[in-house]
Amino acid sequence: MEIITDIALLRARLRQQTAVALVPTMGNLHAGHLSLVQLAQQHAGCVVVSIFVNRLQFAPHEDFDRYPRTRENDCRLLEENGVDFVFIPDEKTLYPVTQEFQLLLPPMADKLEGACRPGFFRGVTTVVLKLFNIVQPHVAVFGEKDYQQLQIIRGMVEQLNLPVEIIAGRTIREEDGLALSSRNNYLDESQRQQASGLADSLQQIRKDIISGERDFPRLEWSAIERLNKLGWKVDYIAVRQQCTLLPVTACNSDLVILGAAWLDKIRLIDNILLTLP
Amino acid sequence: MEIITDIALLRARLRQQTAVALVPTMGNLHAGHLSLVQLAQQHAGCVVVSIFVNRLQFAPHEDFDRYPRTRENDCRLLEENGVDFVFIPDEKTLYPVTQEFQLLLPPMADKLEGACRPGFFRGVTTVVLKLFNIVQPHVAVFGEKDYQQLQIIRGMVEQLNLPVEIIAGRTIREEDGLALSSRNNYLDESQRQQASGLADSLQQIRKDIISGERDFPRLEWSAIERLNKLGWKVDYIAVRQQCTLLPVTACNSDLVILGAAWLDKIRLIDNILLTLP
Repeated sequence: MEIITDIALLRARLRQQTAVALVPTMGNLHAGHLSLVQLAQQHAGCVVVSIFVNRLQFAPHEDFDRYPRTRENDCRLLEENGVDFVFIPDEKTLYPVTQEFQLLLPPMADKLEGACRPGFFRGVTTVVLKLFNIVQPHVAVFGEKDYQQLQIIRGMVEQLNLPVEIIAGRTIREEDGLALSSRNNYLDESQRQQASGLADSLQQIRKDIISGERDFPRLEWSAIERLNKLGWKVDYIAVRQQCTLLPVTACNSDLVILGAAWLDKIRLIDNILLTLP
Repeated sequence: MEIITDIALLRARLRQQTAVALVPTMGNLHAGHLSLVQLAQQHAGCVVVSIFVNRLQFAPHEDFDRYPRTRENDCRLLEENGVDFVFIPDEKTLYPVTQEFQLLLPPMADKLEGACRPGFFRGVTTVVLKLFNIVQPHVAVFGEKDYQQLQIIRGMVEQLNLPVEIIAGRTIREEDGLALSSRNNYLDESQRQQASGLADSLQQIRKDIISGERDFPRLEWSAIERLNKLGWKVDYIAVRQQCTLLPVTACNSDLVILGAAWLDKIRLIDNILLTLP
């Protein structure tokens, strides 16, 4: 495995490769990321993992500065998992000047996560577009855990005709259902015990829908109430159509149940997919 | 030469090429375009010319509908000039759905042409980005005649890390100095005789600067006055720094003199470069 910080060097190394898979990350790697690496290995002979905590997608009040940076451990994990190249650019490499060329996104990017974190998806898509142009991968792997991000990146690839195939990796969970996330590191012991409550709420909605309930706003509101009672501050709980993330109509059968909520100063997100018969 | 309308087919054809040059055009080809083709041939073994009148860069009141479309003649010219592939997508091919992913541009894109034609550069950069992603050229050739466009595309390539080299082709002129442009076709005989007045004005400014004049606003205003007297309606005449298109300061020596003006309903633009000793 080679650790590369320079764009020109990375391009030179990749020029000889016939099929390259990219797994973009912000580091602080866990089993979720490693499952994406394995997926990448199934699709290409050469796997590049990028590690870059992207300031552009953080609002000034968010956790950019305290976001966990664990480069040595990350590289060890990636080496153990047979990754070929780790691309770790510094900020001056990806943003040598103020990034003025960014992306204008569809209205969907202003909903849900986009409503709670204005500018987040613009920052994400801009850095992903840059990474795609640097690495020129044949496939790129993203986790389903960030479901709205996944759909926006799929839309970007389609509408900008990017020559890359997007592969989605399933969400990996702890035994109690908590979705793996670097931000789980922020949880103290008692918060950690509470944290699976978000996934539980989404699962409860799923069960109710399977049992025949179709009043989605009611399901959303009772989940929010339940979580509030458990000490969460909920940003949203939403039952939506899978691809568009629009509200569900009678003819949709592919649904996604999404949630974002705070435990004190820690914001967790999660989602589960559900296909009606 | 092969004429291709389909993205997948074009990509398949280009997959075997080691060096591809792209010349994006809106068709209605003239000697200016053909000089770009020759430049492209000096830089790559395989030259793709795209022809697409891009609705996205026209405002509703502009000349999208009457923009000259001369496909047969264009293809004949390109074949005679040894082009390998002409890519002529229809609108549904490049914009199968509403193009929601577009580009956010730097402030420079709101000046000069951008001030006169809001949304123009957003439309241009979006389609150029799509064409780059479809063709994946090693080099792309743009005319200096659209100088601000050239600089914005250079900025886009740099800031988005696009793996393409931008080559600029010099402006080709009629004997009287009129810069070649598809919109010259709109000129009637008497307008055609007047039309070189724009280039004359820019040349006059150039001479005055070479003679030592450094009051650029005064030069701009007297050129505007001169053109107005000759029956033009001037959008702007501007002496600027070459790369940034910012106003000139004492330490700049690479200048560009830009102009845009109307003869009746026909809008012409031009520019000349000037390097101070």
